[in-house]
Amino acid sequence: MTAPIPDLPVLAEDDSMLSRKFGREVANYFSGSPLNRVSFLRTDHAFLGAAFAHPTASFLLVDNLSPLGKDAANLAYVGRDDIVSLTGSAPFDKSEEDQIKEFNSNITHPVILFLGLDEKKKTGFEFREYKGSPYFAVDVTPKGSIEAKAKGVIEAVKAKTGLSFIPGGRLMTLNAPEAAIYAQARALLDWNHRNPFCGGCGHRTLSINAGTKRVCPPTDLADVPEGAAPKQRPDCPTRHGISNLSFPRTDPTVIMAIVSADGTKLLLGRSKRYPPHWYSTLAGFLEPGESIEEAVRRETWEESGVTVGRVVIHSSQPWPYPANLMIGAIGQALPGDGEAIHLGNDPELEDARWYGFDEVREAMVTGVSGLGEAAPKGYKEGGLRIPPQTAIANQLMNAVINGYLTLPAKI
Amino acid sequence: MTAPIPDLPVLAEDDSMLSRKFGREVANYFSGSPLNRVSFLRTDHAFLGAAFAHPTASFLLVDNLSPLGKDAANLAYVGRDDIVSLTGSAPFDKSEEDQIKEFNSNITHPVILFLGLDEKKKTGFEFREYKGSPYFAVDVTPKGSIEAKAKGVIEAVKAKTGLSFIPGGRLMTLNAPEAAIYAQARALLDWNHRNPFCGGCGHRTLSINAGTKRVCPPTDLADVPEGAAPKQRPDCPTRHGISNLSFPRTDPTVIMAIVSADGTKLLLGRSKRYPPHWYSTLAGFLEPGESIEEAVRRETWEESGVTVGRVVIHSSQPWPYPANLMIGAIGQALPGDGEAIHLGNDPELEDARWYGFDEVREAMVTGVSGLGEAAPKGYKEGGLRIPPQTAIANQLMNAVINGYLTLPAKI
Repeated sequence: MTAPIPDLPVLAEDDSMLSRKFGREVANYFSGSPLNRVSFLRTDHAFLGAAFAHPTASFLLVDNLSPLGKDAANLAYVGRDDIVSLTGSAPFDKSEEDQIKEFNSNITHPVILFLGLDEKKKTGFEFREYKGSPYFAVDVTPKGSIEAKAKGVIEAVKAKTGLSFIPGGRLMTLNAPEAAIYAQARALLDWNHRNPFCGGCGHRTLSINAGTKRVCPPTDLADVPEGAAPKQRPDCPTRHGISNLSFPRTDPTVIMAIVSADGTKLLLGRSKRYPPHWYSTLAGFLEPGESIEEAVRRETWEESGVTVGRVVIHSSQPWPYPANLMIGAIGQALPGDGEAIHLGNDPELEDARWYGFDEVREAMVTGVSGLGEAAPKGYKEGGLRIPPQTAIANQLMNAVINGYLTLPAKI
Repeated sequence: MTAPIPDLPVLAEDDSMLSRKFGREVANYFSGSPLNRVSFLRTDHAFLGAAFAHPTASFLLVDNLSPLGKDAANLAYVGRDDIVSLTGSAPFDKSEEDQIKEFNSNITHPVILFLGLDEKKKTGFEFREYKGSPYFAVDVTPKGSIEAKAKGVIEAVKAKTGLSFIPGGRLMTLNAPEAAIYAQARALLDWNHRNPFCGGCGHRTLSINAGTKRVCPPTDLADVPEGAAPKQRPDCPTRHGISNLSFPRTDPTVIMAIVSADGTKLLLGRSKRYPPHWYSTLAGFLEPGESIEEAVRRETWEESGVTVGRVVIHSSQPWPYPANLMIGAIGQALPGDGEAIHLGNDPELEDARWYGFDEVREAMVTGVSGLGEAAPKGYKEGGLRIPPQTAIANQLMNAVINGYLTLPAKI
């Protein structure tokens, strides 16, 4: 059975000059969050404390990157009372300055990630001019000094609600707004989880700014007798000025629909791990010191031998597996030798081919499915199979076969 | 005196369908490298060894992020003989497997970064089907166990050539192709320098893949008697499967020219550190779990209160200070209240204003200079000042005032 492909986020129609010239904006899966991050309030403990304490606050529990869910399409949220045994009743009481002073590397603090305010739900919470229902994600993975408490929260919530955690992996079944909330929560909890130590000096770090920053404290109270002064730690470069090591990491990735010089064919490739006849657009990580356009040309040439001229950036997609930003582009191959396929540079692809737009159009009807799913009804063995609408690859192919290169844009 | 603004990279004209519809690609400063990175050969020690040993190989010496230069506009390269006292004569002799086995955290290895092949210079080097002159960057910063040797190389090269290192800081005077080479070298040497320890386990890491990967070895020979078995280190999550912690980090940053709903005005802002009357486009870091388009809307609202509808991604710029990818976008404000400026959300900007296209056009003639430079001749006190052509901010403004929203594209 083929799993249903979830909806894409929906943007309001608009008739701006940009939309008239370039067409309606493509909103990709994992974007379209209903929450306002009010990122500038993450350092304000009066705000965080009030949001945490408000009766309308919603908490998404995440255990080993698996979120609590109603079903495969919907996340479930719990209330503050369900988590205080793990978080304490006022986890944002202390200023960050005091948290850093009192840092003890033997003590595990659960990451309580502030996600944002749902401004459509005006349920009574307000702070200065900001109104809406507060959302948090809490990492309840049992580990370190909070292992027992975290297990207690998990078991109590399961028993009370009858709900369970949706297996993490590559979760692609959530409804659009829920998928965007999960993407934010997963990316940031995973980043905190992957970086317990400082890359600059090798010592343990502390999560602050409601889960969006990690600092390297200058002292440590671990194994220090009660009342004694904390141990000084060696000097660390991240303590001098602003360091990117303190902030979450997002890896820019290019993914590109490459069109033949005459605008009639699409370059698609397949890796060995794909099911038979399954092809997608080429993709790869952007490298330091290169533009998106250069990365598109380099990766296309390295993987397929094709030489690309003009590159236009089409749309983008957050991809929380684990921390990618998919930057979707459309590029056009140089004519003649530029279109010759050569797989011998980087042996990453098993095959790459030029597909006529008609073949891709046919695949949009009979060949679309998730990577692990069976082909849909109507699929004839041997026909082209391609990724679902939730993948930006599909959106790029769709744009190209629907006249992106030539037609006047419509909204 | 105003420093000359360096050239921008030049792309070949093309008449592809994409160029006809969207206009010629904008190539930004720090992009446009003449080198083919052949990234898939970085793990091939036979290739790296042959490239290093070839008499046409060029080495860019970098001391504390400052490159050796002929003058402010041109990098200088030395030959292999000038650096072997630091690197040894065959630094790629050992396989990476052996380097990892022999890891000794007391020993500093200079990072020898493979930059790529200049295929226009067919000077005799070839490996399989790849031909061109090999380029490397070598970190000669005196530190750790190589301090004395690194100092020796620096002094010998200065004495022999009479050249000096161009002060690092925000080097913006190099000619376009040199700027792109420096951007690649700086970003990667800086990443190696900032990450001597593993974020996953806190132990020292080792640079491999010719400067483009850092691994966390399972053993360490530091302080182990000659001939004895190496010390085992604790298990590290980065050793299980592929971890992004092993690869260079690039931070996606959005920078956006926001146009008024009626398409006649541009939203510009200024920070306190700018000189008087100096304004630029708004910008900010993209966050995990958001698309580029969402980041543009969020950052614009947070910094200026303006609400943005349609966003189109225009072009991109590598920005090696320290590791950013500037993603340039053009967005259109929603009419009415959407255009109201409110600086009270995130207090990052000192001011933000709507400027008529004519004022920006005038500034393109009389108000363009580098951030630290004096205003150009013809500037009248009180007039708008804006960043130079080497900044993507200038390119975005330029596109908008020249009809990007409405005119049919030309190449």
